[in-house]
Amino acid sequence: MQFDSRTISEMDKRYRAHLMNSMSGFRSANLIGTKAMNGQENLAVFNSVCHIGANPPLMGFILRPLTVTRDTYDHIMESGYYTINHIHHSFINKAHHTAAKYPTEVSEFKKAGLTPHYENKFHAPYVKESLVRIGLSFEEAIPIKANNTIMMVGKVQELHIDDALVAEDGWVDLSKAGTVAISNIDTYYKTELIDRLAYSKPDESVKSLLKK
Amino acid sequence: MQFDSRTISEMDKRYRAHLMNSMSGFRSANLIGTKAMNGQENLAVFNSVCHIGANPPLMGFILRPLTVTRDTYDHIMESGYYTINHIHHSFINKAHHTAAKYPTEVSEFKKAGLTPHYENKFHAPYVKESLVRIGLSFEEAIPIKANNTIMMVGKVQELHIDDALVAEDGWVDLSKAGTVAISNIDTYYKTELIDRLAYSKPDESVKSLLKK
Repeated sequence: MQFDSRTISEMDKRYRAHLMNSMSGFRSANLIGTKAMNGQENLAVFNSVCHIGANPPLMGFILRPLTVTRDTYDHIMESGYYTINHIHHSFINKAHHTAAKYPTEVSEFKKAGLTPHYENKFHAPYVKESLVRIGLSFEEAIPIKANNTIMMVGKVQELHIDDALVAEDGWVDLSKAGTVAISNIDTYYKTELIDRLAYSKPDESVKSLLKK
Repeated sequence: MQFDSRTISEMDKRYRAHLMNSMSGFRSANLIGTKAMNGQENLAVFNSVCHIGANPPLMGFILRPLTVTRDTYDHIMESGYYTINHIHHSFINKAHHTAAKYPTEVSEFKKAGLTPHYENKFHAPYVKESLVRIGLSFEEAIPIKANNTIMMVGKVQELHIDDALVAEDGWVDLSKAGTVAISNIDTYYKTELIDRLAYSKPDESVKSLLKK
C-alpha cells in the first residue's frame, strides 16, 4: 500500500489519525498522579513521557492544548509536584479508564480502582499497583507552537523500584518489570527482551551486553 | 529500592544514565535515511521519533546538540527530505550498528548491510528491509534550551506499508508489523498485542476494539 501527500490529505479524518498515530511507533505507558492544594487527587494516563537528561535527572511529557481544564496541569502548577508510574500489564484497563472525562472533584484513582499511595511525605500520590514509581518536581513548561501543545519538564526527586529489577550498572529490563508499551493512543503491548547491545564501533560486529 | 535526590546526584555517572534512561519507558525504533546533494547516503538509528499531529501529518525526532558533525541534520537541511523506517526484529544488530561513528563519506547502509531503496523519485533513500517506510519533508527545527537538543519536525509526503498491516480504520498493529520497541538506548524488544481499547467514558467499563 502506498500513500502520497494527496491521498493522505484526502483521507477520512479518523482513518488518517489512526494511521499517523501508528506510524510513529511505540511509546511509553505511564500514569501521572497529582494532588491539588485542597487535597483533591487526580490520575491520568499519558503515552508521551520521555527522557530529557540524566544529570540533572529530567523527564518530560506532552500536554495537549489548554483549551479545556487540564487537572494534571493545574495541580502541577499549583503544588509543584507529580508522580510518574509505569503501567503494568495487569492493569491496562484500569489505567486506560483514567482517560474518561470526570469533573475535577472526582478522583480517577477511585473510578479506575487504583490505589493512591504516599511515601516519604512526598506531596503527590503514587500508584500503589505500579512497580516503577517516580516522584518529580516541576521545572519548566515549554510551549510547542506547531500544535499548541506543552512540553512539561520535571526533575526526578524520588525513585521507587524493586531491587531485583535494577541491574548492576543501573539498567532496568522493562519486560521483567512488566511495563507495557503503547501504540496509536489505544493499543497496549507486552514486551519480550530480544537483546541489549553494546556501543557500536566502526567495522566491529555488534556485541550483546547480556550474560547468556 | 528507593532513591532520593541526594542518592541520585551522588550516583556513578553511568549508573545514573542507565537508570534514568530506563525510567522513561519504551520508545520507538527507527532508522532515518538521508542523502546529501552530492549523492552521499547516510543512515542512523533513532529512538526519539514521535507523533506530532495527523492533519497536517507531522512527525518529530530529537537530535542531540550540534557540537559534532551530524550528517542526518546536515543532509536534511541541505536537501529538505528524509525517510523514517521502522526497525523490524530481524535486523536489530544491523540497525544498531548505524550508530557507529563513520566519517561523512562512508555510507552506513553499506557498513550495516542494509539496502538503500528509492521510490517515486523521492530524494532520500528508504531502507528496503523495513516493512514500514515513511518519506518526509523538513518543516521546522525547534531548539530545546533545557539541554541544547533540537526537535526536528517533518511533514509526511509518502507512506509505504503492506496492505495486510493496515486495518479498516487506519490502525496498524505494530506487533504484526514486527516493529521493535527500544528502552534505555541499547535494549530492543519484541512486542505482543494485549488489547486495543475503546475511548474511555465516565462510569462505563473499558471495552476492547478487537474482534475476538
